[in-house]
Amino acid sequence: MAAARIDAARLWDDLIALGAITEPDKPYTRRSFTPLFHKGRDFLKDRLEAAGLAVRTDPAGNLIGRLEGSVPTLPVIAMGSHSDTVPAGGRFDGIAGVIAAIEVARAIQEAGTRPRHPIEVIDCLAEEPSAFGLSCIGSRGMVAKLDDAMLAMTDADGRLLGDALRETGGDPARIAQAQRNDLAAFLELHIEQGPVLEAEGIPIGIVTAIVGIRRIEIRFEGQAAHAGTAPMHLRRDAAYAGALTLVRIRERAEALAAAGQDYFVATVGIMEVWPGGSNVVPGRCRIVIDIRSSNPVLTDRFAAGLDTDSHAAADMAKVDRTEFALLSDGVPALCEPLLRETIREAAKACGQATIDIASGAGHDAAFMAAVCPSAMIFIPCLRGMSHTPDEYSTPEELAAGTAVLLETVLRLDKRLD
Amino acid sequence: MAAARIDAARLWDDLIALGAITEPDKPYTRRSFTPLFHKGRDFLKDRLEAAGLAVRTDPAGNLIGRLEGSVPTLPVIAMGSHSDTVPAGGRFDGIAGVIAAIEVARAIQEAGTRPRHPIEVIDCLAEEPSAFGLSCIGSRGMVAKLDDAMLAMTDADGRLLGDALRETGGDPARIAQAQRNDLAAFLELHIEQGPVLEAEGIPIGIVTAIVGIRRIEIRFEGQAAHAGTAPMHLRRDAAYAGALTLVRIRERAEALAAAGQDYFVATVGIMEVWPGGSNVVPGRCRIVIDIRSSNPVLTDRFAAGLDTDSHAAADMAKVDRTEFALLSDGVPALCEPLLRETIREAAKACGQATIDIASGAGHDAAFMAAVCPSAMIFIPCLRGMSHTPDEYSTPEELAAGTAVLLETVLRLDKRLD
Repeated sequence: MAAARIDAARLWDDLIALGAITEPDKPYTRRSFTPLFHKGRDFLKDRLEAAGLAVRTDPAGNLIGRLEGSVPTLPVIAMGSHSDTVPAGGRFDGIAGVIAAIEVARAIQEAGTRPRHPIEVIDCLAEEPSAFGLSCIGSRGMVAKLDDAMLAMTDADGRLLGDALRETGGDPARIAQAQRNDLAAFLELHIEQGPVLEAEGIPIGIVTAIVGIRRIEIRFEGQAAHAGTAPMHLRRDAAYAGALTLVRIRERAEALAAAGQDYFVATVGIMEVWPGGSNVVPGRCRIVIDIRSSNPVLTDRFAAGLDTDSHAAADMAKVDRTEFALLSDGVPALCEPLLRETIREAAKACGQATIDIASGAGHDAAFMAAVCPSAMIFIPCLRGMSHTPDEYSTPEELAAGTAVLLETVLRLDKRLD
Repeated sequence: MAAARIDAARLWDDLIALGAITEPDKPYTRRSFTPLFHKGRDFLKDRLEAAGLAVRTDPAGNLIGRLEGSVPTLPVIAMGSHSDTVPAGGRFDGIAGVIAAIEVARAIQEAGTRPRHPIEVIDCLAEEPSAFGLSCIGSRGMVAKLDDAMLAMTDADGRLLGDALRETGGDPARIAQAQRNDLAAFLELHIEQGPVLEAEGIPIGIVTAIVGIRRIEIRFEGQAAHAGTAPMHLRRDAAYAGALTLVRIRERAEALAAAGQDYFVATVGIMEVWPGGSNVVPGRCRIVIDIRSSNPVLTDRFAAGLDTDSHAAADMAKVDRTEFALLSDGVPALCEPLLRETIREAAKACGQATIDIASGAGHDAAFMAAVCPSAMIFIPCLRGMSHTPDEYSTPEELAAGTAVLLETVLRLDKRLD
């Protein structure tokens, strides 16, 4: 009986083949709930079945391939990620993790070694924000966080998420049964989507935590006025308050990140100014701040500073801060220490160097951490680019990460009970 | 023979009656080239004819009522403003000047005194930005600045400005004949659209100059990036550059205005950020700066500072300043000293206090200054509000300004040759 071993060429060919299922004029686009997405799923089903796995779709629309273990009472070791993309995204984000998991299952099958635990490959439904405005739909379902209000969300055509879920093979009426209480571990391989591994020349990132994301919306309200006749000292310019706040956010975030205590970033991705005429002093301004850290203490401290700064900016601009609203707030998900340690040992056995790294992006693994030990393996990607057609990892980088994933699963199969 | 005297009640009634010709759901809206605008013009024609004036529409679509003078060789003393509004504007901006001019002509007629000069009342076409994106269409026509490229501009429905002009009674084929070389003076009464007269408690502003407006567009280009995974120190955030520039614009403009050397204001009314997602570091940012001064030296100095500041902001944010474009540049129009002096004497004769004041807004009188001595009389308006349904001057304020306009015309009729 041979040792299980991945086939790097087959792995790469599958990834490229799935990537080719894209809107032809807008590579690489395979958004969840679209006919193209279903075509991608058919490709995955075919590969899973060819590998001898039993394929099913759970009520939350997750595509699952299962290999039974030799000890019927043991819980499942699961691997996976997602196969949907953002519009004009890449061929690796999510996809690499699904294809890697298939390759690992295939390698185990081919070695003829029956694992003790059942092994599952999971293609989580709609990790990216779908046309319904919700992300991580499948992993939410597996951790009982996909509620009726979410299932009643609609897309631009008025289609219900629940109905779209049914077309994907899910079953909104049985959504509670998507919840998993039978998992020993969830492992997700993913491209870093950042520049660190490439810059450091390290092939394997062991994720320590997936950041919590807090979003805050601030609105300033002053008085729209004639750009020619409103004297400077009497203006109540809401855009001035917004700009002052944006500058302070950047200064504070840069200082906090540079201090290096924990991972920290903050972004103003939205700044809107009304009425938006060149000859009108802006009467209203809205900014949305995205704050991410592996340490909720830093997030709290930053948000408190933001409160102070935005008040001071409003005073400076003689406007009112009419809103300081928490749009969303997710706590960081810590990756489980035993799983991280096993990844480290597996990488060593594979001859691959590792570093610990925080994930600044959200992932299915963060949701899965609510129901089982969860961990992530990062592989490098070109110049940190993601959500663009230029997204790229080399065949060697993908193969190295997948080999570490395989070795991790084999070691967990021995170690876990 | 009685002295010419205005009728304050009739003046006010006419103003309110014209204001009532509005889109019912969006008071006060009577945009140029619309059926409502033509209805307003019918009202004005009726009033002009009732006052015994000869009414015509010139090739540039200006509605003109004319009273012949007793000395056929003398040039015309013209008064006027515009009767079109912005969407959801007021009942005074422009309109007050047209109605006041009609009342002055009526008062002269009723007094039975035949003036030496011909007197004209001019309702200038489309002073406000019309659906064709061009303002001061009628006054441009009178000073030979309405060219073929402008006449070929289209509205959202693809209608040509030239065709719309024809429907208004103008004649694009004869546009050159709209040019005036027969004017002795152009006088425009207008609400201040700013807070100075009200704050000072002075009923009459004698406009010294109508500001020149320079518009500059700046674009910054960095790199859109994932808000979670792009480390702070590696970001190329274009919105940061925009915000830094906006803050410096405000600081510089406030200092220049406070120095009090000449009238100065600068505004960032447009700030756009791309792609505009809460989870994306902005890769592009556009700001438009509106700079107004009665002194072109200040405008030049400010623009030079803006060049420096926006470069420094781009460096700070590690982005490129890809554009620093002059969108438009108008020189200040000085009001003619003899006309200003005559207004001052007329106000004194009427028992009204005056102050000198710069106009921060553009006006038809600024264009008219290219072909004849031009001057403006400002009257106070409530809290400086304009371009809003709340725009307001009292009947007394309107009557006082109109009386000064009448007295100015009578004095000019004696003084000018």
